[in-house]
Amino acid sequence: MKTEKISELTTNRLSVYLRCLNELEAAGVETISSQALAEQFNLNSAQIRKDLAYFGEFGVRGVGYYVADLRQHLTKILGLTEKRRVAIVGMGNLGLALANYNGFSAHCFEIAALFDDDPGKIGTRLQSGLEIQSTQSLREVIQRENVEIVIIAVPASAAERVLEMVTAAGVRAILNFAPVHLHAKPGVKVKTVDLTISLESLSYFLANPSEDAVSVDSREFLRPEAGANGAAG
Amino acid sequence: MKTEKISELTTNRLSVYLRCLNELEAAGVETISSQALAEQFNLNSAQIRKDLAYFGEFGVRGVGYYVADLRQHLTKILGLTEKRRVAIVGMGNLGLALANYNGFSAHCFEIAALFDDDPGKIGTRLQSGLEIQSTQSLREVIQRENVEIVIIAVPASAAERVLEMVTAAGVRAILNFAPVHLHAKPGVKVKTVDLTISLESLSYFLANPSEDAVSVDSREFLRPEAGANGAAG
Repeated sequence: MKTEKISELTTNRLSVYLRCLNELEAAGVETISSQALAEQFNLNSAQIRKDLAYFGEFGVRGVGYYVADLRQHLTKILGLTEKRRVAIVGMGNLGLALANYNGFSAHCFEIAALFDDDPGKIGTRLQSGLEIQSTQSLREVIQRENVEIVIIAVPASAAERVLEMVTAAGVRAILNFAPVHLHAKPGVKVKTVDLTISLESLSYFLANPSEDAVSVDSREFLRPEAGANGAAG
Repeated sequence: MKTEKISELTTNRLSVYLRCLNELEAAGVETISSQALAEQFNLNSAQIRKDLAYFGEFGVRGVGYYVADLRQHLTKILGLTEKRRVAIVGMGNLGLALANYNGFSAHCFEIAALFDDDPGKIGTRLQSGLEIQSTQSLREVIQRENVEIVIIAVPASAAERVLEMVTAAGVRAILNFAPVHLHAKPGVKVKTVDLTISLESLSYFLANPSEDAVSVDSREFLRPEAGANGAAG
């Protein structure tokens, strides 16, 4: 394994590959080439080879990748071999939606605690059986429940304060949905989900409708000389 | 501008650059180098140059980028010069959270219509002044309100049916929050937001804590020969 830092975009792609491999395994596929993987899931085969080569030699010449093997490797690289316990702070509409989102548990994330500081919400029990607890007990509950990841779903004005409480409780991984840039201490990772970025890529598509007509791979095949037209430095 | 297709990851990065430029302009910064842009916002300077070179020559030797100019170019490339009208289908917790999310309007997206098929919800007016309408009137309302983008926030089991209704009404850009893979017709772009992917990159960080210790740029500076150690084919 190389020692340089890999980017979040790379780990996001590994997550996508893992989903594809899950589908392939469920469909009984045992081996697949990077080319076939790219075609079936609308990915870029050169990027797949580059991303995977980063972590070692997974491909076998003339065979491609062994689906079960590669799936197991990616699961391990992404740290998904153990259950990760997650807490949500902020039980407004978004927090409730996340608490009831059934995509998490299917991917080894377990919602272990819910917090709000509204006395009208504290004590309410959700469908999952979890009870909303007071933010005042955050530190104690997070440590008792071995929470590793906290999702911040409070208004922007309260997010920085919640981040401080959560890191003071020892949590090092935070997913922030508040539309505000948060300042993390060294050793703590804060990932802010910006919902408008997804809308902007749709806006790009609407402004450039022809962009989607040709896939990267077919164009590369048709125009092998394209690299020569690359932008000058 | 080159003619090959650019990936969604690239448009996502353009969105990130645009946010950085907005902050710089608000702070009164007039020019910035790709290196300084990368350092200030924790990005990769080589990637910035590559992404921007794709759309033309924006940098000026010895100066870097003119912040206001580049900001205007990116806004145009992303199709954000005109307001995009958005409808949300599904007024559960997630739909309500999205309807009240005030990040959208700040970025030229305007929520123009809300739909649900629960008679108990139809007719309810939200804080924004918008009323929840029956999904039965979807086609008529979408066309009257010039909706270009639809957000699907219904349960997974209903998402495919909603997608059909929405594309039949002429919408070509869909943001799907249901945890299910949808099948779009040619000429229609469906972007599915997978909330677990964000959690998985946090899981990667927890499993590989040293990864965040060194930034890409400082390592490139310290080890200019790193390229020679690249993975073999």
